[in-house]
Amino acid sequence: MIITVSRQFGSGGREVGKRLADELNLLYYDRELVTDIAEHTDLNESYVSSVLENGGFKNYAFTFGRSMPFVSPTPAPVTDVLVAQQRIIKAIGEKGNCVIVGRSADVILKDYKPFRIFVYADDDSKIARCRARAPETEHYTDKQMLKQFKEIDGGRKKLHDLLGVHPWGDKANYDMMINTTNLDIKAVIPALAEYIRQVTKK
Amino acid sequence: MIITVSRQFGSGGREVGKRLADELNLLYYDRELVTDIAEHTDLNESYVSSVLENGGFKNYAFTFGRSMPFVSPTPAPVTDVLVAQQRIIKAIGEKGNCVIVGRSADVILKDYKPFRIFVYADDDSKIARCRARAPETEHYTDKQMLKQFKEIDGGRKKLHDLLGVHPWGDKANYDMMINTTNLDIKAVIPALAEYIRQVTKK
Repeated sequence: MIITVSRQFGSGGREVGKRLADELNLLYYDRELVTDIAEHTDLNESYVSSVLENGGFKNYAFTFGRSMPFVSPTPAPVTDVLVAQQRIIKAIGEKGNCVIVGRSADVILKDYKPFRIFVYADDDSKIARCRARAPETEHYTDKQMLKQFKEIDGGRKKLHDLLGVHPWGDKANYDMMINTTNLDIKAVIPALAEYIRQVTKK
Repeated sequence: MIITVSRQFGSGGREVGKRLADELNLLYYDRELVTDIAEHTDLNESYVSSVLENGGFKNYAFTFGRSMPFVSPTPAPVTDVLVAQQRIIKAIGEKGNCVIVGRSADVILKDYKPFRIFVYADDDSKIARCRARAPETEHYTDKQMLKQFKEIDGGRKKLHDLLGVHPWGDKANYDMMINTTNLDIKAVIPALAEYIRQVTKK
């Protein structure tokens, strides 16, 4: 069983992925991937992180808790990172029994027929989620946050669309799309896990 | 509990709706609605059916089992039918505890905060589903079927978009979007029902 979770920034995709992994007793890959890639490519981890998050098209000095990439002054050898990323994700796919959040794993692992989830939410909900998780020292207006959401998701889209047939966020890419606006994610995880068990059982 | 099911033609949205209604012991509204509307508006039922399916923008002589509208030679007083449709769907919403398939109920009942599902599938899957359900006498090429899908869904979109803020098929409209390509709908209904129970419980 392989589950991929693509998500709008701030929608709780990471929480969905982690809780599903716990519920289904699967390995969970997210930020750890970045470390692996950095180790395999001799690239600086924070730089790699930045590339993976935004495709090397833009850097951010913004921090929303752990989700935000670091800023790197280095110019982007994007190709090296993407090649390494694909190699590592394929190795993870071969092992199987995992949840992978982001990193275009839905496309990279398509031959393994993963269950592909897309997590999204409305703007108010994403702002509230980010504020709840941000360090106390962080103060941004709603407008600033929405601008960042757009840029970060835009970076994800660009990276994904280098690889994908259907655009990032297009329903044709996914087996299920979940709107987390007003959703108690924890409460629905057992039912969601059972849905996926039914779909993926032989 | 109110569940609305919007769906691409041929994706099995009606099956999802009916089975959910059975599982959750809810009233189920679909084609029956048309009869109600016809009774309340003194319009001819087959004509009303045609208007509701395609918004009066076009008529079809095509038949895919029960899903297809009849053809009417009458010119279209669309507004009468739409007004009657809204009145009836609102009455149904007020009663609650129901599943409504199509008819823009997701928008019309938005004040009741229904759980809004969108059901979709890839073209091959929709063609296979329609062929399995078509009368033996019906013979259309894939190309003909795809053209009809596009026209029927286009009609649904037009009707929906008269009322909706977000376009038909846009994820922002829905709480969950389900891809039925290769899906055993029956097998996932209990899990889906449980998900909705969790979301809608006070």
